[in-house]
Amino acid sequence: MATDTRDRIINASAELFRRQGYAGTGVKQIVAAAQAPFGSIYHHFPGGKEQIGVEAIRDSGALYALLIDAVIDPAPDLLSGVGDFFAAAAEHLRDSDFADACPIATVALEVASTSEPLRQATDEVFEGWLAALSARLRCAGADEERARAASLQILSLLEGAFILARASRCTEALDAAGAAATAAVAEALRGPPPR
Amino acid sequence: MATDTRDRIINASAELFRRQGYAGTGVKQIVAAAQAPFGSIYHHFPGGKEQIGVEAIRDSGALYALLIDAVIDPAPDLLSGVGDFFAAAAEHLRDSDFADACPIATVALEVASTSEPLRQATDEVFEGWLAALSARLRCAGADEERARAASLQILSLLEGAFILARASRCTEALDAAGAAATAAVAEALRGPPPR
Repeated sequence: MATDTRDRIINASAELFRRQGYAGTGVKQIVAAAQAPFGSIYHHFPGGKEQIGVEAIRDSGALYALLIDAVIDPAPDLLSGVGDFFAAAAEHLRDSDFADACPIATVALEVASTSEPLRQATDEVFEGWLAALSARLRCAGADEERARAASLQILSLLEGAFILARASRCTEALDAAGAAATAAVAEALRGPPPR
Repeated sequence: MATDTRDRIINASAELFRRQGYAGTGVKQIVAAAQAPFGSIYHHFPGGKEQIGVEAIRDSGALYALLIDAVIDPAPDLLSGVGDFFAAAAEHLRDSDFADACPIATVALEVASTSEPLRQATDEVFEGWLAALSARLRCAGADEERARAASLQILSLLEGAFILARASRCTEALDAAGAAATAAVAEALRGPPPR
């Protein structure tokens, strides 16, 4: 039961941070959304909102990484897997009325210059996703340097297109970004030019 | 003098929003940064913080658009101009201790689901930047559809790489994104395959 409360607080916080950011989310709002007693916040999280933020970022990051396995790995090849990921992201964004995009990007931008513990948590999550993408690119034949560059390009395209799609309430940017992401994969797998 | 105060409020707000977001910036903090009397806020901005937000977004957007002219247009061609833009963005980010990236992205993510006037202001700014990029791509020979797609790819890459660079305090993502952006330009200028 205690663990349930803790989980509900983390889950409710993660959703609020994703939709409206970290600074815009108050502890009272977290408590209400989690249906938790107010005192339970400081019982479970003596570090207060910043500690909740760090744990919500890590949790969201781990959950989102599972989508890489779930969407990319069943595809017949990495090129179509990456394309499928952008298409699934676009569909989910439309279904959530343009609210559910990246679980940590809003917080990442807010805290980059204001909270070292939160900044580090977002950096660790991004590095985890980049490592997961790099591993698949290397597995498909890319060398380490090209796998890293393509992973950075894919994740940049996804994060940037999420911003444009949420601002415009239209998934056109995700379609264009998906095409560029598959091109980046193709380029990484092509390997260095013959000498 | 009245206009000076108004401008100082907009400029101070734009900088605070860029660095720490909209929700994390209070009116008191704006007043202090702008060295303005508290009452002047509601004299110049009867709509309060949301009105300041809309005007700061528009102002920042117009200023940032000038960088497209200043950095891309002097380059010998569009390909190197776009590459130069990512290199300049990386240098400026390092120089500002990873604080000054996109002037409106943090606010765009925060408000997308919470304030229609602010969301619309960010959308208008992004569309202005996309139109400026598209015009240059069409001028260099791309057809309208490819110019639009490449513009979305370039801006997605820039915005996404800014997130990763600020989170990691490292400009590696901007280097990789710049390479993908020039590839997107090259692809747009290549035109449709011959029939």
